[in-house]
Parts: sequence; structure tokens; C-alpha cells
Amino acid sequence: MIYELYYWPGIQGRGEFVRLALEEAGAEYRDLALLPEAQGGGVPAMMKFLDGDDVARPPFAPPFLKAGRRLIGQTANILLFLGPRLGLVPRAAADRLWIHQLQLTLADFVAEIHDTHHPIGAGYYYEEQKAEAKRRSRDFRAQRLPKFLHYFERVIERNPDSGRWLAGRQLSYADLSMAQVLAGLDFAFPLASKSALRACPRLRALQREVFARPRIKRYVASGRRLAFNNEGIFRRYRELDA
Amino acid sequence: MIYELYYWPGIQGRGEFVRLALEEAGAEYRDLALLPEAQGGGVPAMMKFLDGDDVARPPFAPPFLKAGRRLIGQTANILLFLGPRLGLVPRAAADRLWIHQLQLTLADFVAEIHDTHHPIGAGYYYEEQKAEAKRRSRDFRAQRLPKFLHYFERVIERNPDSGRWLAGRQLSYADLSMAQVLAGLDFAFPLASKSALRACPRLRALQREVFARPRIKRYVASGRRLAFNNEGIFRRYRELDA
Repeated sequence: MIYELYYWPGIQGRGEFVRLALEEAGAEYRDLALLPEAQGGGVPAMMKFLDGDDVARPPFAPPFLKAGRRLIGQTANILLFLGPRLGLVPRAAADRLWIHQLQLTLADFVAEIHDTHHPIGAGYYYEEQKAEAKRRSRDFRAQRLPKFLHYFERVIERNPDSGRWLAGRQLSYADLSMAQVLAGLDFAFPLASKSALRACPRLRALQREVFARPRIKRYVASGRRLAFNNEGIFRRYRELDA
Repeated sequence: MIYELYYWPGIQGRGEFVRLALEEAGAEYRDLALLPEAQGGGVPAMMKFLDGDDVARPPFAPPFLKAGRRLIGQTANILLFLGPRLGLVPRAAADRLWIHQLQLTLADFVAEIHDTHHPIGAGYYYEEQKAEAKRRSRDFRAQRLPKFLHYFERVIERNPDSGRWLAGRQLSYADLSMAQVLAGLDFAFPLASKSALRACPRLRALQREVFARPRIKRYVASGRRLAFNNEGIFRRYRELDA
């Protein structure tokens, strides 16, 4: 099975959570966001599925994955589908549901991180909502950021099978996503996250371990992984981290 | 199996999506939010699981469901678990994944609806973010509300098995959640949703059909279903719907 991943070109965004799972598993996939339009990639390839009249089960937004004739949207749902196929979840149904629950909590966290720079809506530029973004970020840094991080630290701590991963004995797709969120926070909120993570040694260790895995290292070094930038979810505005 | 549902007392909130599924299926459940503290219900019952030192897999936030010894958090994840048990999803794995994808898209919609009155964060009162709420609601009414509604209308339209439900031949938990969102919008944004729903006859029919189902009617009439109020997700502020 050669998977096809559809996402916005030029940013890591939510597509990156899917990429990390595919990369860690060594899965074969075509990343349409990296393919030029002339070769059938880019935004037009994506729009065909979002806006096409003949798509039976259209996704609401990217990322979405094509797996044979199936079209699967919503990041956490894609990972729910891929997890067993890529060997990134344990066998027991209860464990899989718990890992999905963690992924959904990460999705909530990611949405709140995004909204620090776009509290009024994606329909306005950052510059049009800078004052509101500063106010929202203050609340985020003081309340939400430590709350989420301490929660995930506690989850690792209470994992009876390992003090390293969020769930079970082995790395799961939720660990990959967790590491990606931490990397994003290092970029967007270096001061606030350094401070909040002082109480979270297990999260820091998880982040290091994920990015030290051979396939993830190879992926990061390949040039295919885009750098964080101020078009994505995680954005670096000094005034929001002060 | 007698399920136990934990949620904030006094509001429908996200707990209501779970309640509607349990009610439609005629499942036995204890609604801890409706039980007085003196009888082991209310906020303390919930906090025991959120803050308890001995909870192996703590949820991040309510609602969460206790099913035997299992504790399951995240609304969409609870419904993913309950769907097959309550007969609220078809048999095929692909259909179940699609219904879950729709539920996650509804969850995104619900988060955006919530943020119309709390764009700066749940840490501030509405009165402290009224100007920002007006601005965010303007974007919501003009862009996001019609975008989401037209999307779901299209999903029903393209369902090859029925022109009535979001997916498959029978009602699923996503249909119940869809109807609940529409009821909430009627309360919070009566003008904007009336206008946006003019182009969505299938959604209006779905809403009517759901609330006409015998068990849902009985539930609504029971007094157990709380009224919408300005403490929940859907809030009625005239200035946000003008």
C-alpha cells in the first residue's frame, strides 16, 4: 500500500503528525504537498477532494490520507486508522482507545496553541489581531500551557509499563505527536515552555528519544521536513512569549 | 452494564452529546452531574477522577464515562467506544471511521462556537472579552458558520444510502450530535443560523427527525435534559448575533 498524504504546501502544520507516523514506520507514501503542481501535487491536488462534486465522503479540511480507495480526514482519525497498520499501537482495544484519547487531547492543545496568534479567527491576519493575541497568549502561558504539559507529564509518570512513553511498553503515534508539539513549543514559546517544562523531565526525555530514533533522524536530515515558520500552527512572535 | 457519566452539573455542554446517545439507545446509566453531592454526585465525584493520585489513566477534562473498570475521556472517543455497543453505528469498519471523522469535525465546530463568546480564553469572564467576542462572532457568522453547515448538508446529500442521515442507512451517534449542535445554534445564534440554514433543508429535517424520535422525546420531556443557558457552550448574547 502506497499511502497518499494531502496537505497545505509550505508548512508542517497538522500534516506533520501524520508524516512522523509514516516516517517512523518506514511506510511508503507520496506527500502531495511536496510535489509540484505540474506533477499533480500542491494545492490543486488537495482541492480536487475538498471541492470536487464527485467525492462521496469529502473531508472538511486537510490533512487527509488516501489509502487505496479510502479517503480519511481529521488528523487523529488518520492516526487511529494508521496506528495498527504501522505497528504504532499495542494490540489491546482498551490501549488503543486510551492512545486515541491522548491524541484528541493533543489536538485540543494544538488548537489552543494555534489560537494564541489567531484568537479572533483565521479570517484576519495576525497584524489585525495582535492586541487580542497578546492577551490570549498571556492566559495561555499562565494557565493552559502548564496545565496541558503537567497533564501529559503525569500520564507518562503513571504509565505502569514504562516511564518513557505515554502509554504501553513501546512508542505509539501519540508519543510522536507529543514530541512534535514540544518541538513546536520550543519554536513558538521558547521562554514560556522552558519555564513550564522544568517540572516535566519525562516530557523532555520523550522529545529527545523521539528525535533520536534512526528513521526520524533520517527524515529530519532529508530536507523533506520543512522548518517551522510563521505560516503554520506554531509561530514565533516575541511579543507573545514575553 | 450500567454506565456512569461524569460532567459539570448545571449545563448540557459536551456531556449532552453522550447523553443523547445513551438515551436514544435506551441504555442504563447514572448521570453523576444530576446526582446531589450528598449522594456521591456532582463536582466532587468528577474531581476524584480528574485530580486523584490513584487514577491510572486520568482524563484531561470532562465529560468522561465509566464503563465497568474502564474510564474513557474525550467526547468523540466516548462515542467511538459506545457506538457499536449501543447499536449506533453500522458494522463496517470504514463506515465507523467515517462517522468518527464527522464527529471530530462536529467537535471542531463546537469548539469554534464556544470561542465566539470566549475568544481570549476561558480564564476571563465574557464581560472581560465582549469586544473581542463581537469581532470573532462577526467572522464566525460570515465565514465559519455557513462553511460548516453547508459542509454537513453536502454530506447528507451525498450519502448514497439515505438522504436523511449523515452516513449509512440508519441514524448514528453523529446524527444525534448534529441535531444537538443545530438546537444549540438555534438558541445561541437564532438570526445567523436561520439565515445560513435556508440553504440546508436536509439539516433541518435531520434535526426534526432526531427530536421526534420516541426515546429522545421522552428524554426531553423528562426534565432531565437541562435547558440551554449562558453557562454552557451555546450562549445567547444578542450582540453576538446582530
